[in-house]
Amino acid sequence: MEKIDEYPFYVEPFHVDLTGRMFMGILGNHLLNAAGRHSQRRGWGIGALNETRHTWVLSRLSIELEQMPRQYEQGTIRTWVESVIKLFTNRNFAILRPDGTPYGYARSTWAMIDMETRQPCNLLTLYDGDILNYVVSDEENHCPIEGHGRFRFREPQFATTIDTHYSDVDINGHINSIKYIEHILNLFPIQRLRDEGIRRFEIAYKTEALLGDQLSFYMQPVDEKETDVEVRKDGGEVVCQAKVRFF
Amino acid sequence: MEKIDEYPFYVEPFHVDLTGRMFMGILGNHLLNAAGRHSQRRGWGIGALNETRHTWVLSRLSIELEQMPRQYEQGTIRTWVESVIKLFTNRNFAILRPDGTPYGYARSTWAMIDMETRQPCNLLTLYDGDILNYVVSDEENHCPIEGHGRFRFREPQFATTIDTHYSDVDINGHINSIKYIEHILNLFPIQRLRDEGIRRFEIAYKTEALLGDQLSFYMQPVDEKETDVEVRKDGGEVVCQAKVRFF
Repeated sequence: MEKIDEYPFYVEPFHVDLTGRMFMGILGNHLLNAAGRHSQRRGWGIGALNETRHTWVLSRLSIELEQMPRQYEQGTIRTWVESVIKLFTNRNFAILRPDGTPYGYARSTWAMIDMETRQPCNLLTLYDGDILNYVVSDEENHCPIEGHGRFRFREPQFATTIDTHYSDVDINGHINSIKYIEHILNLFPIQRLRDEGIRRFEIAYKTEALLGDQLSFYMQPVDEKETDVEVRKDGGEVVCQAKVRFF
Repeated sequence: MEKIDEYPFYVEPFHVDLTGRMFMGILGNHLLNAAGRHSQRRGWGIGALNETRHTWVLSRLSIELEQMPRQYEQGTIRTWVESVIKLFTNRNFAILRPDGTPYGYARSTWAMIDMETRQPCNLLTLYDGDILNYVVSDEENHCPIEGHGRFRFREPQFATTIDTHYSDVDINGHINSIKYIEHILNLFPIQRLRDEGIRRFEIAYKTEALLGDQLSFYMQPVDEKETDVEVRKDGGEVVCQAKVRFF
């Protein structure tokens, strides 16, 4: 089987923001679906893994765009495994126009955990290391965006606390990875979102939050273009961290 | 051109609730997309209409299910125009499994308005009444669910007020039709959503709300299985009304 898959997307009317650009959360959803299907086709999808009591856990996602796709545009998400480092695998994405030019790229980092012990598994030995047969090195297929960045929370400012609801959670009762992206972007002034647009969005998932948990959001400006965001649940435990860079 | 179109759907992991059933809002989105594409193919899509300064406005949507599609299932949405009554058109939907049996059905009612005057247009004369060429009567293709119901707000109880954010609005800066469905279902006890599931969901859109408007939700139990919900914006104007019937 080839190593790289491509999945088409189409920008639906309810998937765009007030500027007509696709919501970042919707793009994130398309990327995670592409990842899921690529894994599934090769036998390490969630369905297959549940039988052996393993599951993928998304640790990091970084998306960087030259331009966000707009309403009624279409394109392709190309995805491949860049590397496997025992407990983690790095999966990259290219988000392409029909003519092959890039809207942008993304990087993601995943662990596989044992669903009973919640401990990470050694990807080099699981399924006899089958995943290694699909690694596409960066020399072979270059992802031209920077790796995941570092967060800097010196004096983060409290922004807001929200309740979580039915529509926030996934089939496991966990707050859905995509909903964090929505809630985080809702923190920013509408003028910035409208006039500047987002060049790069990063998120690091730390701990699961559950339906009913209250989430508190803290913001730390890094420079004129960039802001870090930390999300904490009741009791102060960090749930996720994000970095938003405007154009 | 044929009168009835079919569009495939697939139930993605982030599109299901904690029970593994597709969110009602996601199904609503699929239906509205099917409607949009069916119109677009026949020359009365939003893109074409904007050139003549007309746009479709969704007035009512009623969805009734035998079973909500579940994660990883696929199916087809079949859509057709049932009737045209001067200022309104009724469009129906069948939500079908791959074997052709129904998950459920839906009914919708739309007006076409002039974007400058905001007044409804006569559909019987617009584009020389072209839409009449595509009407499929209920005898030809039966939609076996009841028509839109009546709401009964005798003593509605205040439930909550929410702020609206960036992620709530569409390209026109209006609160997105689908987001109302999410916010309305978030009002119900999680146990009911989980254990009973929704048999029928109706919504009537009355007035647009804008980004930044606060929305207040009022609930009126109708009987053991059914609750009506009214959404009002600042100042008390009714934005939309909904009816939720559990199994």
